[in-house]
Amino acid sequence: MQQLKAASSSPRALVFDTFGTVVDWRGSIIAEGAEWGKAKGLSIDWARFADRWRAGYGPSMDKVRKGQLPWTKLDDLHRMVLEELLKEFKIEGLSEEEKAHWNTVWHRLHGWPDSVAGLTRLKKKYIITPLSNGNVSLMTEMAKFAGLPWDAILCAELFHHYKPDHEVYLGAAELLSLKPAEVMMCAAHNGDLKAARECGLMTGFIYRPSEYGPGGRADKASQGDWDVVASDINDLATRLGA
Amino acid sequence: MQQLKAASSSPRALVFDTFGTVVDWRGSIIAEGAEWGKAKGLSIDWARFADRWRAGYGPSMDKVRKGQLPWTKLDDLHRMVLEELLKEFKIEGLSEEEKAHWNTVWHRLHGWPDSVAGLTRLKKKYIITPLSNGNVSLMTEMAKFAGLPWDAILCAELFHHYKPDHEVYLGAAELLSLKPAEVMMCAAHNGDLKAARECGLMTGFIYRPSEYGPGGRADKASQGDWDVVASDINDLATRLGA
Repeated sequence: MQQLKAASSSPRALVFDTFGTVVDWRGSIIAEGAEWGKAKGLSIDWARFADRWRAGYGPSMDKVRKGQLPWTKLDDLHRMVLEELLKEFKIEGLSEEEKAHWNTVWHRLHGWPDSVAGLTRLKKKYIITPLSNGNVSLMTEMAKFAGLPWDAILCAELFHHYKPDHEVYLGAAELLSLKPAEVMMCAAHNGDLKAARECGLMTGFIYRPSEYGPGGRADKASQGDWDVVASDINDLATRLGA
Repeated sequence: MQQLKAASSSPRALVFDTFGTVVDWRGSIIAEGAEWGKAKGLSIDWARFADRWRAGYGPSMDKVRKGQLPWTKLDDLHRMVLEELLKEFKIEGLSEEEKAHWNTVWHRLHGWPDSVAGLTRLKKKYIITPLSNGNVSLMTEMAKFAGLPWDAILCAELFHHYKPDHEVYLGAAELLSLKPAEVMMCAAHNGDLKAARECGLMTGFIYRPSEYGPGGRADKASQGDWDVVASDINDLATRLGA
């Protein structure tokens, strides 16, 4: 039934999870960390550093969700986690400028090889925007850095709620002046799509087997689990006729 | 002193008024109206129609400002004014679909001849966004239609305040994670720039002598009135070294 529904309706806008779905956060942080570490004479397991940083992401957003922190931009949550990691990895003597620059490594993430090409195709037929937990300036600078051709920047900061809070999905549809059913959430993560579906959005799964590295456990989906199940963003464009 | 200050500091982001500054609302509405009127057999003074529509803009936003209306998207304010104009111009028998389509003529405005080229130059050096009273979906569709290469879509709707309310200028700086003094408001209207300056933003004037037509009274500015005074967006790019 879901498949029939997907086939008979078409979205007007596609909104994308970004970290992991559109950009390779882990590979990008490892690469820049290795380069920076070499220049600084640091001997660090950058894969572990990246994984630990990302692992701090959920709990830090939970503090905002539970009201233990007021609304806080993701840049500032990243910085809080970074301060802990600098202690854990015994990285000392950084200037404020160096810390601030390293914290914005999240603005300098590279797209997966298919991301720019796939989004460029989709942009001709659909409105395409991120719908990320990253803040507006983070997403804006990332788009410039990685060449992501978004039509607008939508993200959690505009609603002062982090995904998977429903306010984010419903708020995005409202700003796009569309019904939730006219918007397709596209993500590599089943939890994000589940919340979007609960809000009445269409859903597009994008498979990213390498998001968490060789030993990591990426989400999978079968045809029929979501309105569209795609192997990457180019495949999504093909399946959506773009 | 103002000039010295402008010369010694440089903005990180440029935010643009859009109606009149980047796009030619009057010429675009006249052109589409004439075409549509011909197809419908309507004999209307489309210049007057466009001017009357725009004239309803300020008073309708004032109703929101004074709390006589709850927050209302500009698309919906445009529609309220349109309903009055249809009576005034004795245009009858339109279907809901025709009215809705005609109301979104504001999404189909053409840039001034220098707009796309000038913005494309500025985008290489600066973050560029609209900062318009138009709602997110209006601005997003206009950008697609006119080829405006914005890095993000910022507008009044995100703050539930209409310019020149200070919340809009200060809110834009906050979303860009910049100090107000790192953001330059660019507009063809002195009132917009005055409010931006009161909020601590830098100011860039763009001269649009044709905004209100041959008999209209466009704002003027002299060198020194604002941080930058430009004859169009290409000239702004040159003056800002882009």
